Formats: sequence, C-alpha cells, structure tokens
Amino acid sequence: MTTATRLHDAIAELAAFNDDPDAGGITREVYTPTYAAALVRVAEWMREAGLAARLDAVGNLFGRWEGAEPGAARVITGSHVDTTLNAGRYDGVVGVLGAIEAVHLLRDEGVVPRRPIELVAWAGEEPRFGTGCVGSRAAAGQLARADLDRLRDRDGTSMAAALRAAGFDPDRLAEAEIDPAGVYALVELHIEQGAVLEDGGESIGVVGAIAAPHDFRLTLRGAATHSGATPMRLRRDALAGAAEAMTALERIARESPSGTTVGTVGVIRVRPGAINVVPGEVELDVDVRDSDHAARAQDVDAVVEAARAIAGRRRLELEVAPIVEDVPVQCDPRVVAAAAEAAHALGLPHRRMISGAYHDAMIMGARVPIGMIFVPSAGGISHHPDEFTDAEDVERGVRVLAGTLARLAA
Amino acid sequence: MTTATRLHDAIAELAAFNDDPDAGGITREVYTPTYAAALVRVAEWMREAGLAARLDAVGNLFGRWEGAEPGAARVITGSHVDTTLNAGRYDGVVGVLGAIEAVHLLRDEGVVPRRPIELVAWAGEEPRFGTGCVGSRAAAGQLARADLDRLRDRDGTSMAAALRAAGFDPDRLAEAEIDPAGVYALVELHIEQGAVLEDGGESIGVVGAIAAPHDFRLTLRGAATHSGATPMRLRRDALAGAAEAMTALERIARESPSGTTVGTVGVIRVRPGAINVVPGEVELDVDVRDSDHAARAQDVDAVVEAARAIAGRRRLELEVAPIVEDVPVQCDPRVVAAAAEAAHALGLPHRRMISGAYHDAMIMGARVPIGMIFVPSAGGISHHPDEFTDAEDVERGVRVLAGTLARLAA
Repeated sequence: MTTATRLHDAIAELAAFNDDPDAGGITREVYTPTYAAALVRVAEWMREAGLAARLDAVGNLFGRWEGAEPGAARVITGSHVDTTLNAGRYDGVVGVLGAIEAVHLLRDEGVVPRRPIELVAWAGEEPRFGTGCVGSRAAAGQLARADLDRLRDRDGTSMAAALRAAGFDPDRLAEAEIDPAGVYALVELHIEQGAVLEDGGESIGVVGAIAAPHDFRLTLRGAATHSGATPMRLRRDALAGAAEAMTALERIARESPSGTTVGTVGVIRVRPGAINVVPGEVELDVDVRDSDHAARAQDVDAVVEAARAIAGRRRLELEVAPIVEDVPVQCDPRVVAAAAEAAHALGLPHRRMISGAYHDAMIMGARVPIGMIFVPSAGGISHHPDEFTDAEDVERGVRVLAGTLARLAA
Repeated sequence: MTTATRLHDAIAELAAFNDDPDAGGITREVYTPTYAAALVRVAEWMREAGLAARLDAVGNLFGRWEGAEPGAARVITGSHVDTTLNAGRYDGVVGVLGAIEAVHLLRDEGVVPRRPIELVAWAGEEPRFGTGCVGSRAAAGQLARADLDRLRDRDGTSMAAALRAAGFDPDRLAEAEIDPAGVYALVELHIEQGAVLEDGGESIGVVGAIAAPHDFRLTLRGAATHSGATPMRLRRDALAGAAEAMTALERIARESPSGTTVGTVGVIRVRPGAINVVPGEVELDVDVRDSDHAARAQDVDAVVEAARAIAGRRRLELEVAPIVEDVPVQCDPRVVAAAAEAAHALGLPHRRMISGAYHDAMIMGARVPIGMIFVPSAGGISHHPDEFTDAEDVERGVRVLAGTLARLAA
C-alpha cells in the first residue's frame, strides 16, 4: 500500500469517531468516550508501526521508537486528534497519523535513528475548557492543579471532573510534566489553516515562528437615543465610533512594519440593539497577532491610541480590558534547517512562513527547541466540515517530516 | 389647583398602572388588563372635564366636547397611553392628559368652540405586535382584518386574540375607520424624544413635517477563516467591510442636502462570532429617516451604492433586503400656523422643527390635516425609565395646545 493510500484510509477511519455525524462535520472533544475510542485506535496504529504506546497522567498518548543510543535526548513529533464542534478531519490528525506514517517510511528505508523518536497525540489542543493545548501545557508545566478545577467547558464540567470521568487522576497532573533536558527537538506537522501556501502554489511550509495573540476588549459608551429624534450632530453613537476603530485596526495591521501582523474583530456586542435606537454601548473583542513580539506590542498600542482619539472626538467613553496575551515563539534554527533540507532533498520547493494559528508546538516551544511543517488547507478553511488537504499534499508533508526526523535523530 | 400641579399628579397616578414596577420603569402594553384599567382612569378624567367618553372597535378611547355647531367637522387631539417595556411616564401620556388639561383651561377661560373637539387615546402606538400605531392605522383604514391575525407579539399572541381577550371583536375592525370628511384637523402634543429643544434652550417645538423611516438590511458575505492563519491581504472580512459601510452611511446622512437626514445602524449580526475567526457574514439593519422624501430616497441609493463599491473592492457578496418604507408626512400649514400663533400669543418662543420619530399623527396625516407640538425631553432620553420632561415645560405645551385648539375650533 502506498503512503498516500494508507494515510488516506486511516484519516477516513478516524473520522468515523464522531459524536455528531448528522451535522456534516466531526465532533470529537477531548476526554469523551468517543475521543477515548479514537485514541485506542491511534495506539493500535502506533503499535503496528513498532512503537511502544503509553498514556501519561492527562491523557497525552505517546508512542516511542527506541534509538540506537537509548539515553540520548529524544525527538518528539505529533499533534492532536481532538476537534472543535462540527470540524474537519485534517486539523491535528495529519500531524499524528502522518507521524506514524513517517515512522513506516523511515523503517522501510532502513533508517536506524540514533536518538529515540517519540510520537505524541496531545490531549485537548482545542479549547473545550476555554483554554486550548491543555495536554501540552501540562507537559510544559504550565498547568497548576487549581487550573483543573477552574477550567470549565460550556456545560460547566471542570477539566478535573472530565479527567476523572475518563479514568485519569487530576492529582497526578505533575507527572505529565516533561523534563526539557530529555528532549532534543520537537517538530509538528500540521495543516496550514490559512491560504498562504495555496495562494503561492506551494505544498510545503517551513515555519520560522509561531504568532501569538494579544486579545483585548474595547468598550465604547455613548448615548442610546431615538434614531429618528436624534439629529446626526447631537449623536453619541457608540457603533459609529466602533466602526471607525475597526477601520483603524485594519489599517494599523496592514501597515505594520513587521509585515506579518494581523488584526481582527471577531465578536461585537451592541446595546440596546434595536433598529430605531442609536447604539449606546458597543464591545469589540480585538485579536492582534504577530510572530514579532515588539511589532505586536507597538500595533496594540497604536490601536488603543486610535480608539482613544476616536472616542474623544465623538464624546464616547472608552474602556480597555485585557483578555489574553501569549508570547510568540521563534522556531529553532536546527529544526528549521532540518525541515528545509528534507524538503530540498525531496525536490520539493518550500515556503518559509510563520504560523498565524497557535499549536501545541508553541506551548512546548517555551521549553524545548521546536519547529513546524505545514501542508496547504484548501481555501484556507479550517474548523469546518469543508476543511480539506489534498492526499498528495499530505503525503509530501509526511515525507518532509520523515526526512526532518531522520536528520534530527541522526 | 394649578394646571402644572393637576397634570403632574395625573401623570404620577397613571404611572402606577404598571406591569413591571420592580424594573424601575413603566410597562403598560396595549390590551393588557393593566392597560384597560389605565384607560378606565383616563375616561374618568375625560368625564370630569365634561367630555363624553367612548371606546371604538379597536379600543381607541375618545372624549368629545360638543361644539356650538354640532355638524361641523371636528378637531381631534390626543396621543397614546401604552408604553414599551420598562419605559418612561411621559411618552404619549403628555399628549392625552395634556389634552384633558387643555380642555379644563379652555373651559376656565370661557371658550366655546364652534367645532367639536375630540380627545383621543390611540390604542397601541408602541409596537407590541411588531407594527406600531395599530389604533390610528385602524382609524385611517390602513389595517385589514387579515392583519389582525398576522400581527403577533413576542409571545406569539395575535392582535386579533389580544383584542378578543380585551373584550373587543376583531371582526368589527372596519367600524373604527374615521371618515376624513368629518375631521377638520388633528393636533398631537408629544415629548420630543430627542435633544434638539434642550440643545437650543427652547420649550416649544412646532412640527413642520414628520420623518418616516426607510429601513433595509445589508448582508455582507466574505470568508470565515482563522484570524491568526489568514494574512491581511488574503482576507475577505465581512465585518471590516461592514465597518466601512457604516462610516459611509454616517457621512452620507451628515452631508445630505436636506440637513435633516439621519442614518443609523442599531442592529448588527456577526457570524460565526468567535474571537479567532474572521467574520464571514455580517447583517446590518439600516434605518434612514427624513421628512424630505426625495432626499431620503437619494441617500438610501447612495448608501447602497457605497456598500456595493466596498463589497466589490473587498471581494464580498452584498445582499440588500427591504424591511419597511413609510412615507414622510408634511404638516398642514393651518395647523402649523395655529400652533405658532398660540405660542406667540403666550410669549413663548418656539422652534420650527421636524419630528424624527413617527407618531399616530403621522398615520392620520395620510388622511386628514395634521400638526404636532413638542415639549423637551431631558437629554433626549425616551423609552427608558429616565425619560423626563420638566413640569413647567409640560404646562407650556398644554397652554400652546389649548391655544391651538381654540384657534382651530373657532
């Protein structure tokens, strides 16, 4: 069986572990029985590839290929197999099943790695409990026992309760932490979830840095008056001010000197929200991301300053409240070089790019040298039933991953 | 008792007919038992003023002062005593209780009108059933029997069912229609519901025209992609386009040659509405109003054209759907002159202005000569517990109304 066929079949088989097949997409949230069943199947595939599979204290699944030098710091690769609600079949899955396939490829080529290679399916990359990457955060020592009680899903179930229901003991959280000294490098294969590769006609992206979000809430307050009875000159229209602020955000992101800043308002709340009332209060949830930490900070300042000027001119009150502020991660030059060389050796042109979305690799990047390999997402669509990556692109990604692992583990 | 005191007490007494006193404001929706009880009290006040009270087929309450020439076409004055949810105590009420007080004033002055003067409390000016002014619409022949089944409140109760529950027979709807030949003029005293008078330091507004809304929905469709993974240049952000369209709407309304156009977006819906997803679809409910019909049409065209250009430039789809399109009404020059003379005779400066909000008078204006007198709204606030008009301003309005009625009925 070819790599492309075997992988395609495995992706299709995993897609059948689905809590909401009628919706058209895939729903497989971490710590559910459906997720546990999917993980059992992944563990079987790991064993078929000659790997020793084990679960850690928070449900991260590892599959280890012992190296020629057992005590050497290991190379980790993998992603996740949980999904958001009604999602696609490629996000995360390509990085887990692709890693298993890469092991097959390396074995077929007779490669004997010097360093151990450890595959991983991280638990809960998707934010069932509000915060994403809970499995890799546990491995990176970024979760405290109290967080497990605090983090809750949309039904109010705490992460601790979900762990218990899935057969884990939340009090053993600390056992999931990985000693960075034992890790030589980590590389994650993932779908791009954007349209940069497709736009450029390329199959392989080698990630140089992972952008992180700085999210904050702008609240503008004016006067909720009658839309008919309030002449334009007497208005304090919070939404008209918000519209101007959104345009300023877009301009600032576009003109950012880093060239990689993105600025988005994805959530807006308007009160009172009646067609004949001038909006008195508007909340904008603003998301600014960049792999360049300094540029991002400058752009956030510029957005807040612009909003303040707009509010002042329009006699609106402005409130700025923090939501989240993560730190961008630079990929390790050795991992980047290994991936670039692997692509080159296969005759595959690649694009050096940033990851706009965050991943488990970003979390681990705070502790160990990391890198990422991207394959294209058709139309840039992700977290949606229409998410799609061509089977040949997936295979190219797997081959580049295999070459990268061979180089890092040599 | 002075006019100001008697009116102030009556307004306070009527405010006690309230279905939700704990909310802080007044909730008295048409056809409820609370509304019926309030109407009984108003009918008593009418009788105390020497008027013959009667209810028509849809619950409009009339109080008639027979003139010296009983067959003469009558002068109608009044407003409404129903409210929106958690509203103020002045909207509508000032025009009904103020009209009763005006009759007292005229009687005290020994005025004997030649024409009959008929007071009215229109049923359902506020849009319990989605459409406002149902009582005056029935009187103007603008409601069909089928409408009574079609129009429903937020609980799904049809207007026909509400009428029946209140003791009326919906099949007698046609009996509520008023023959325009029997009406010489109609004048309505009302709070401004805007801040134009307050801004100008004036107590009396004489309305020259009533603006009407042209409401429509703009839907912009782009691509819902990952906020991190989609560079600015590859976005089709429906909300960024909507922000530009809202700014264009504001500019077009401000620069409208009529000088009286207002443009508002009071309702916005963003999908999917997640902080890390570029909005793929946005609906804007746009409200454009003017007393100048031609200017309004031109401005609506300009807004749609601007939205189309924005959508084209941003690779968004644009859909335009109608919501409502009412026709502005010009006030009758005789009514306007009578009100202006009445204010002048009392030594009260007045402002000629338009009504931005619509009223029962606008509905009747399609059939009979109408006019309106405004008193200030503190801060322009209406439909809110903080709605307030100074007792002295109310009294001034009542005195101008009395003078207007005396002139029109002479």
